[in-house]
Amino acid sequence: MTAQVETRLETDSMGTIAVPCDCYWGAQTQRSLQHFDIGFDRLSSSMIRALGITKQASAIVNQSLGKLPPEIAPLIIAAAAEVAQGQHDQQFPLRIWQTGSGTQSNMNANEVIANRAIEMAGGVLGSKTPVHPNDHVNLSQSSNDAFPTAMHIAAAEDLRHLIPKVTQLRDALSERSAAFQDIVKIGRTHLMDAVPLTLGQEFSGYVAQLDQNLNRLQTVLPELYPLALGGTAVGTGLNAHPEFAVQVATQIADLTGLLFVTAPNKFAALAAHDALVMASGTLKTLACSLMKIANDLRWLASGPRCGLGELNLPANEPGSSIMPGKVNPTQCEAMTMVCVQVIGNDAAIGLAGSQGNLELNVFKPVIIHNLLHSVRLLADACGAFTQYLVVGIKANQGQIQAYLDRSLMLVTALTPHIGYDKAAEVAKKAHAEGKTLQETCIALDLLTAEEFNRYVRPEEMI
Amino acid sequence: MTAQVETRLETDSMGTIAVPCDCYWGAQTQRSLQHFDIGFDRLSSSMIRALGITKQASAIVNQSLGKLPPEIAPLIIAAAAEVAQGQHDQQFPLRIWQTGSGTQSNMNANEVIANRAIEMAGGVLGSKTPVHPNDHVNLSQSSNDAFPTAMHIAAAEDLRHLIPKVTQLRDALSERSAAFQDIVKIGRTHLMDAVPLTLGQEFSGYVAQLDQNLNRLQTVLPELYPLALGGTAVGTGLNAHPEFAVQVATQIADLTGLLFVTAPNKFAALAAHDALVMASGTLKTLACSLMKIANDLRWLASGPRCGLGELNLPANEPGSSIMPGKVNPTQCEAMTMVCVQVIGNDAAIGLAGSQGNLELNVFKPVIIHNLLHSVRLLADACGAFTQYLVVGIKANQGQIQAYLDRSLMLVTALTPHIGYDKAAEVAKKAHAEGKTLQETCIALDLLTAEEFNRYVRPEEMI
Amino acid sequence: MTAQVETRLETDSMGTIAVPCDCYWGAQTQRSLQHFDIGFDRLSSSMIRALGITKQASAIVNQSLGKLPPEIAPLIIAAAAEVAQGQHDQQFPLRIWQTGSGTQSNMNANEVIANRAIEMAGGVLGSKTPVHPNDHVNLSQSSNDAFPTAMHIAAAEDLRHLIPKVTQLRDALSERSAAFQDIVKIGRTHLMDAVPLTLGQEFSGYVAQLDQNLNRLQTVLPELYPLALGGTAVGTGLNAHPEFAVQVATQIADLTGLLFVTAPNKFAALAAHDALVMASGTLKTLACSLMKIANDLRWLASGPRCGLGELNLPANEPGSSIMPGKVNPTQCEAMTMVCVQVIGNDAAIGLAGSQGNLELNVFKPVIIHNLLHSVRLLADACGAFTQYLVVGIKANQGQIQAYLDRSLMLVTALTPHIGYDKAAEVAKKAHAEGKTLQETCIALDLLTAEEFNRYVRPEEMI
Amino acid sequence: MTAQVETRLETDSMGTIAVPCDCYWGAQTQRSLQHFDIGFDRLSSSMIRALGITKQASAIVNQSLGKLPPEIAPLIIAAAAEVAQGQHDQQFPLRIWQTGSGTQSNMNANEVIANRAIEMAGGVLGSKTPVHPNDHVNLSQSSNDAFPTAMHIAAAEDLRHLIPKVTQLRDALSERSAAFQDIVKIGRTHLMDAVPLTLGQEFSGYVAQLDQNLNRLQTVLPELYPLALGGTAVGTGLNAHPEFAVQVATQIADLTGLLFVTAPNKFAALAAHDALVMASGTLKTLACSLMKIANDLRWLASGPRCGLGELNLPANEPGSSIMPGKVNPTQCEAMTMVCVQVIGNDAAIGLAGSQGNLELNVFKPVIIHNLLHSVRLLADACGAFTQYLVVGIKANQGQIQAYLDRSLMLVTALTPHIGYDKAAEVAKKAHAEGKTLQETCIALDLLTAEEFNRYVRPEEMI
Repeated sequence: MTAQVETRLETDSMGTIAVPCDCYWGAQTQRSLQHFDIGFDRLSSSMIRALGITKQASAIVNQSLGKLPPEIAPLIIAAAAEVAQGQHDQQFPLRIWQTGSGTQSNMNANEVIANRAIEMAGGVLGSKTPVHPNDHVNLSQSSNDAFPTAMHIAAAEDLRHLIPKVTQLRDALSERSAAFQDIVKIGRTHLMDAVPLTLGQEFSGYVAQLDQNLNRLQTVLPELYPLALGGTAVGTGLNAHPEFAVQVATQIADLTGLLFVTAPNKFAALAAHDALVMASGTLKTLACSLMKIANDLRWLASGPRCGLGELNLPANEPGSSIMPGKVNPTQCEAMTMVCVQVIGNDAAIGLAGSQGNLELNVFKPVIIHNLLHSVRLLADACGAFTQYLVVGIKANQGQIQAYLDRSLMLVTALTPHIGYDKAAEVAKKAHAEGKTLQETCIALDLLTAEEFNRYVRPEEMI
Repeated sequence: MTAQVETRLETDSMGTIAVPCDCYWGAQTQRSLQHFDIGFDRLSSSMIRALGITKQASAIVNQSLGKLPPEIAPLIIAAAAEVAQGQHDQQFPLRIWQTGSGTQSNMNANEVIANRAIEMAGGVLGSKTPVHPNDHVNLSQSSNDAFPTAMHIAAAEDLRHLIPKVTQLRDALSERSAAFQDIVKIGRTHLMDAVPLTLGQEFSGYVAQLDQNLNRLQTVLPELYPLALGGTAVGTGLNAHPEFAVQVATQIADLTGLLFVTAPNKFAALAAHDALVMASGTLKTLACSLMKIANDLRWLASGPRCGLGELNLPANEPGSSIMPGKVNPTQCEAMTMVCVQVIGNDAAIGLAGSQGNLELNVFKPVIIHNLLHSVRLLADACGAFTQYLVVGIKANQGQIQAYLDRSLMLVTALTPHIGYDKAAEVAKKAHAEGKTLQETCIALDLLTAEEFNRYVRPEEMI
Repeated sequence: MTAQVETRLETDSMGTIAVPCDCYWGAQTQRSLQHFDIGFDRLSSSMIRALGITKQASAIVNQSLGKLPPEIAPLIIAAAAEVAQGQHDQQFPLRIWQTGSGTQSNMNANEVIANRAIEMAGGVLGSKTPVHPNDHVNLSQSSNDAFPTAMHIAAAEDLRHLIPKVTQLRDALSERSAAFQDIVKIGRTHLMDAVPLTLGQEFSGYVAQLDQNLNRLQTVLPELYPLALGGTAVGTGLNAHPEFAVQVATQIADLTGLLFVTAPNKFAALAAHDALVMASGTLKTLACSLMKIANDLRWLASGPRCGLGELNLPANEPGSSIMPGKVNPTQCEAMTMVCVQVIGNDAAIGLAGSQGNLELNVFKPVIIHNLLHSVRLLADACGAFTQYLVVGIKANQGQIQAYLDRSLMLVTALTPHIGYDKAAEVAKKAHAEGKTLQETCIALDLLTAEEFNRYVRPEEMI
Repeated sequence: MTAQVETRLETDSMGTIAVPCDCYWGAQTQRSLQHFDIGFDRLSSSMIRALGITKQASAIVNQSLGKLPPEIAPLIIAAAAEVAQGQHDQQFPLRIWQTGSGTQSNMNANEVIANRAIEMAGGVLGSKTPVHPNDHVNLSQSSNDAFPTAMHIAAAEDLRHLIPKVTQLRDALSERSAAFQDIVKIGRTHLMDAVPLTLGQEFSGYVAQLDQNLNRLQTVLPELYPLALGGTAVGTGLNAHPEFAVQVATQIADLTGLLFVTAPNKFAALAAHDALVMASGTLKTLACSLMKIANDLRWLASGPRCGLGELNLPANEPGSSIMPGKVNPTQCEAMTMVCVQVIGNDAAIGLAGSQGNLELNVFKPVIIHNLLHSVRLLADACGAFTQYLVVGIKANQGQIQAYLDRSLMLVTALTPHIGYDKAAEVAKKAHAEGKTLQETCIALDLLTAEEFNRYVRPEEMI
């Protein structure tokens, strides 16, 4: 196969290797492609962008600290900016399942930026002249600090984009809650008939859950601001200028508009990823909330004639390949599947996060892959769920009223008047005999019809 | 506190330590009590029994191989048998959260058996004469092989007791399935009305799930038969007689009536617990099945007046402290909580099982604790679920028929006659106008009433 | 069996049932004992205390709002205070595996407090006079708000006790970090020799991890302050005085010294337990950190002669029942097993938290059981780990220096001088030939001995 | 954007929608693209192939049962065969995050096959003439049975390809075990020096683990053979010929060479996916084994100069972007990351598997996505691990011998001669004084040098 592709030779400390001519990547990327042909999962575009930002910021600071020649720095800065802008995503073919430090993807970035910079300078690809992937692009860095820096940048940027999607869903639910505020309905606890509330109140619970989740997302975001960069290989900052760490974090903050700072302890920043474990725990909590909301909506809309039938959901597509006319709560299904995935991803992240050894956690790619996967799925699912489901939810008031009229749990309103034990007797007798509560209260000589009507008013029970 | 308890001195290779006079345990147990005062989880009685069997069988074989003096062996055998019979459970106070090899619990067994044997021989507790906990009771063993041997014994014995409980539940569901075989009801897919089936068919699905789970339990049981004993410290069998491994497995098989054999590879038997990870995966699968069954039953019984209301569940207890007369599907709730715990336990077991290093996995106590916890919960929950729920389930035939009569999905029976697209049109129009399917077919000039009645017969759609 | 126990009759809405005479509990507790004989897990003493506080505070507020007669309120307050103080823990025999709202445990509290109050008043146990478990003790409450209120109280109180234990461990590690600040050692990334750092720096990473975890615990604590009480059965507060919710939260804050407030949205507070899912995520993050720390310490202490051997850990107990003189890192093993359990518990909590339906999540007991289990294990394990391990850790300076002297990764210090590619060549040649870096640099004519010694100074690489 | 793409109109029961002209898919696929623009995860090529086989087999059987006109059947069979052969993978653009029954992907298959068949017949794409996606391609099927049938086909086919990859790894480890059979080395338990074994024995443990995992894979494979097809919408087989289920399973068995049969209970086959949960549990067990093996290999190879250093692993690529000459155990890192992912995927699958309701589990796409992901990653990782790591592992005999010579745990061999307590004293004294065991035995007057040498022979301790 590769025989037919035109190649050039690239070199690293292992020797030379042929690389396709139309690629910017070099020897280490090529070796990784060969040795790690595992599955299809690749670095997300967020991570490629984040590596670009890391390299761009490093070059800027290296130049200002006098470590990078003024003729080379602008080339790296320009090439890295292109990577950050997504112009070279197809130059990042490596799998997640590579070295656990992300070294190969870091070198992929170094090689692509170096060769693109060389190209800008009119040099020969693969010549490492005038721009060397290690000595110049990776200057003052190690994969061990550059890759986790990119992880934090990507996670923070993506989380920042998740928040408006959750807010949008929260607002749509809030709008529905307001629209439904006067619809009194039967409550259900243990799935069994309970005392009434309004449909608006029911939806307000969802809004409250998302409000709290938005707080959680805002709270966890600053966990991602401390950056490992400046720690180099083991956290000591060997070979980096003493000013590098602080200045590069400031530079990254400038480039992203996020409040990145240098991590106060670089040893922990390389050897552990607790902040990402915590961020995933926050996403999992959101997933648990969304699972509850999506499940509620589909149960409330179940039917149309043999279910609870209190809500009508938008009919977006035919529901069945065999049952004509069937419409299903498909957005709820997509959402709950996403939630399940986020919970599974969290299990992977937690396990990976617990497995650091000594100066390095070597589960970096799998951690960031799962985290960004979760963020992306939640963001997109919240968007679709809002647009194609929540805004179109309608109340089926006839059905809601019918349930309310026949419920037995309105008996609870009698407890202050006749006591728990007698009220229970009424409910059981009415249930057994298929009677109404009022009929039964009268039959048991407990209340007159007038008293009953004064005490049992669903609209005052909410 | 301990000042007021009368104590005697016990010794180990660390020196002497005071132990309460009324305890059989010795120095190492006492040290562990002090150093590992963590939570409340203790070795289950199944594990204590299994350690007793391990020690009993070892003494029998050591005697027959001429390694244990004939005056000492019977003492150990008798004392170990008492432990196996549960007579000394209170002598095993150690926490799960101890050394990861279970050494301290193995020494707890050695010490208790030694002192009890000394007592039988009229000796002085703590004197290690005539019976020494290491040199005699632990003879030919290491914690590293004795403890995982006990793990397999306990797991197999408990799994053996789980199977009849699952069978009992399966049989009760099967009996209900037969009782419900003629009740035609509406099916529900995506929670939405679908084509009909019988209630008996619906329950037959639960029976089929449990049949498959019973097969899985029977299939995984033999994974537990290979025993580590004979491997001693690292799997080589150092200090054990070459015949010991095979003979002691046979002896344990005799004592338990289970088909234990010596593990073909002792290195894996000490350093990994894949068989227990697999057993837990089997329990998790059962939990997933039970979760589905319990959820179905409570949804089908939801109401009584504002839910699906197709089933009536036994009313075992008052359901609400505030809503009189409320009865809840509590057995379903207990069952689903048990399922959640089993799934959580499986996560712990898998993680622990992945963490062996070199010649030993040192997560043994947490693995067996979670596994036996899962087995016990599933067995007890299946028992209660059968006795207090399944056998008393009744069909609410009026409600079931009412749903069937008004469902729109019977339109599916028209597909072979008028095609999918026209059938869909009928269903949508009937839904929109609140009409029946028959009315709509006639209105659309698709079928006569007679044709409709010939094609749409729920009792022939099952 | 029960035939020999003297019993009295207790009643509930289901009828009468015999209860042991020496118990305060009543009919509903007794029914639950019969129907839910599942495993051994019981409500923790923290939850019993929290139920006592809930009942005590409710009675105080009910009295002040004029809902509870002045002759009854003090009896309830006194009896509930006894429960809160732990005087009646043995009166709470119910299993976790009961109704998912915790109704039976809530009724257990109501019954115990009612009968104890009746006893104080000189009444007849079981007579419900002058104190009724539902009408008086449970006044203004439902299990649906009382039980989750107790869950938050118990979780917050226990978390408050966890924090000092983590702080204690953090401080002990910090003290060791300071003590080790001048010990230069080889770093290890990917388990492979890397550039140097100090042992103090290595420990500072652990301190930083725990500092962040302490922040997380402090951040999550306020999630637990909003209380469901006042929502009653479905969140509307039916049958509770409008002032009740706010006042009872204030009262609970007074009784506990924690900043409890009434939940802004009671519907979410009953139907979801996101705050507890989030709290568990925080505990899981702590567990991941502790797993890394404990693993590091045991690997650094591995040996004594055939491992890394850089640390000496305290020898608390004999390590092996077969290998004399062996001492094992048992505190690390207990800690990592605890971490595994916390991660498994988190899986259970997340799943349970996702499973609420409509107005109620009925996985309450399993959620709080796992959460308090995790908190307790972490607190106790941190205590033991500090006391019996961390404070006694010693550096094995001879071994540390020997490694440093022979490492090849000091070559990294040459990169700024001879470039990455040449430095790599030196390292590989030295490795292949078993030579030192200096020898190899000279042999390759790259540096003089003097230059080498000026560039490669481990003590300046940290 | 789509304005510039040439489109044609396609129709479904919702109406018309524009579809790109160069696509075979139709209205329902197009609607799904719009409504479920969530993430990037798509149906794997295995699932597309499996849907093709399902449609191909159905058409064959429908024809032979006289349900499909003889002029239409061959068109469908030919088009479906093209899908099965992977010729139209790009025609399956839908996300995993769609309706939970996989209906949209099933319709995607129906639409692509119908339009391709129409094309073959010279008809007009989108005309549904002469081949209708529902009435002909989906004949006798529902998504509810067709999609889970495809899930089982894909899972079984992929598992079948995993087995040789695991076997290959097992064989490579076995070959290394044989090569290392005479190398006596120190064992390590609790990471601490223990008694000796051979390096071959250590590797034999890995072989034994994989042997057992291969058994598990073979055992779980038949769980996947029962197929849902023939159950149609709810399991009753409505609208399918009574012979269809059995014949189509036979046909699928013929097409795949796997022993597929019709599921004995179709209700369970639609409403639960226990077999896939179980299959995932098996994959998780394999992942736990591989995690242990990969961790062992990297620790044994740690160093080269400051770690255990007993093994040399192949140097496939430069290990560090900053530390020249560093070589890392990257295949171990890729493997352990894969294992972490498989464990996370298993958490997702178990949760999804527990969430079926009534006649359908609507988490089908997420279940099969995670399962096939796990299978693929394990297969590829085993391949790379074998080829680029295991076959090249070399023993570092000098280091191994050095450890053996200085270990103290050889003292265990003295236990039968001088007892556990005295042997412990020897080991502790030797450790404290930095002496050899022999020196210490002599100093303590326990043994002569000659006796010591007779008793302590590592090569006889294995």
